Amino acid sequence: MTNTGIENRLHFEDLSTGTIIALGTVTLTKSDIIGFAREFDPLPFHLDEKAAKRSLLGGLAASGWQTAGLSLRLLVDAFLSKIASAGGLGFHDLKWLRPVMVGDTIGGTATIVELRRSESQPQWGIVSLDFDIRNQRKEQVMTMRLANLVDARQPHK
Amino acid sequence: MTNTGIENRLHFEDLSTGTIIALGTVTLTKSDIIGFAREFDPLPFHLDEKAAKRSLLGGLAASGWQTAGLSLRLLVDAFLSKIASAGGLGFHDLKWLRPVMVGDTIGGTATIVELRRSESQPQWGIVSLDFDIRNQRKEQVMTMRLANLVDARQPHK
Repeated sequence: MTNTGIENRLHFEDLSTGTIIALGTVTLTKSDIIGFAREFDPLPFHLDEKAAKRSLLGGLAASGWQTAGLSLRLLVDAFLSKIASAGGLGFHDLKWLRPVMVGDTIGGTATIVELRRSESQPQWGIVSLDFDIRNQRKEQVMTMRLANLVDARQPHK
Repeated sequence: MTNTGIENRLHFEDLSTGTIIALGTVTLTKSDIIGFAREFDPLPFHLDEKAAKRSLLGGLAASGWQTAGLSLRLLVDAFLSKIASAGGLGFHDLKWLRPVMVGDTIGGTATIVELRRSESQPQWGIVSLDFDIRNQRKEQVMTMRLANLVDARQPHK
C-alpha cells in the first residue's frame, strides 16, 4: 500500500475481504502503564505494584483501554492512514483475554472481514476489521471488530 | 455508595440491576483532542482544523477512543472505584453516534443491566453496564456495554 497523497489513498473499491494487515509492535513500560491509568483508569491494579500483585492480574498490568488504544494506533500506522477513512463507527465484542504486563510487547494482525456499501449514503463503504492482538509469547491478549467508514471512488456501484 | 476502605467496597451481592449511576462531566479542549490523537489516533480530522472542516465531522473532533476512555474514567470515579472490581472483561456494541467537538462537555449515565455469577469461577460475578454518553445539548454521542468482574462476598449462592 502506498500513501503518496490524498488522491492516492485507497478507497472502498480498492479493498478486499481476507486481506491481512500486519501491525507493528509496541512495548509497554511501567511509566506508560501508570501514566495512562492515572488519566483514564485509576484503579489500584493499574497504578500500584503491591496492589497489582494481590489482584487477579498478578502484577502491574495495563488498562485494557491502553491495549485497545495502542492497537488502534498500530492500525492507523499500518492501514487507516493509507485509506480514505471518513471515521470510525464503532466496534463489536472487544475481549480482553490476558493481561498486558510491564515489559510486554504487543502486536498482531487486523483482517478485513467484511466490506459493504452504506445503505443510506452510497458514497461511503463500511470496512470491518478483526483485530488479533498478541504478546511476545504469541498469546492472544485482545480481540475486537472495528467498523470504519471509507470513501468510495464511485458513489454507486 | 461509600468508599471507606477495601473491606467496605461494594461486592456482587450489593449490586442491583436497574441501578442508574450518574456520571460526572468532562469538557474537551483543543489541546486535549490533539494530544490524545497524536498518541493514539493520528488522523488528519483529529489533528488539523482545516482538514477537519473538510471532513465528515465538520470540524476538529475527538477520537472516538478518547470519548470511550473518558467515559471509562467517569465510571471509575462514580462506580468502579467503589466496588470490589477484579477487572474488565470486554465491551459490546460500542457505537459513536455523533462527533465530540472542541469545547463539548460529555457526561451521562451507566445503568446496571445484568448481574450474573461466573460459571467457572463462583467467587466472581459479572456486572454489565450500559453507557449512555451525551453532550451538553443532551444529544447522545456514544453507547456501549461493559462487562466487568466483581468479587462476591460468598463464593456460592
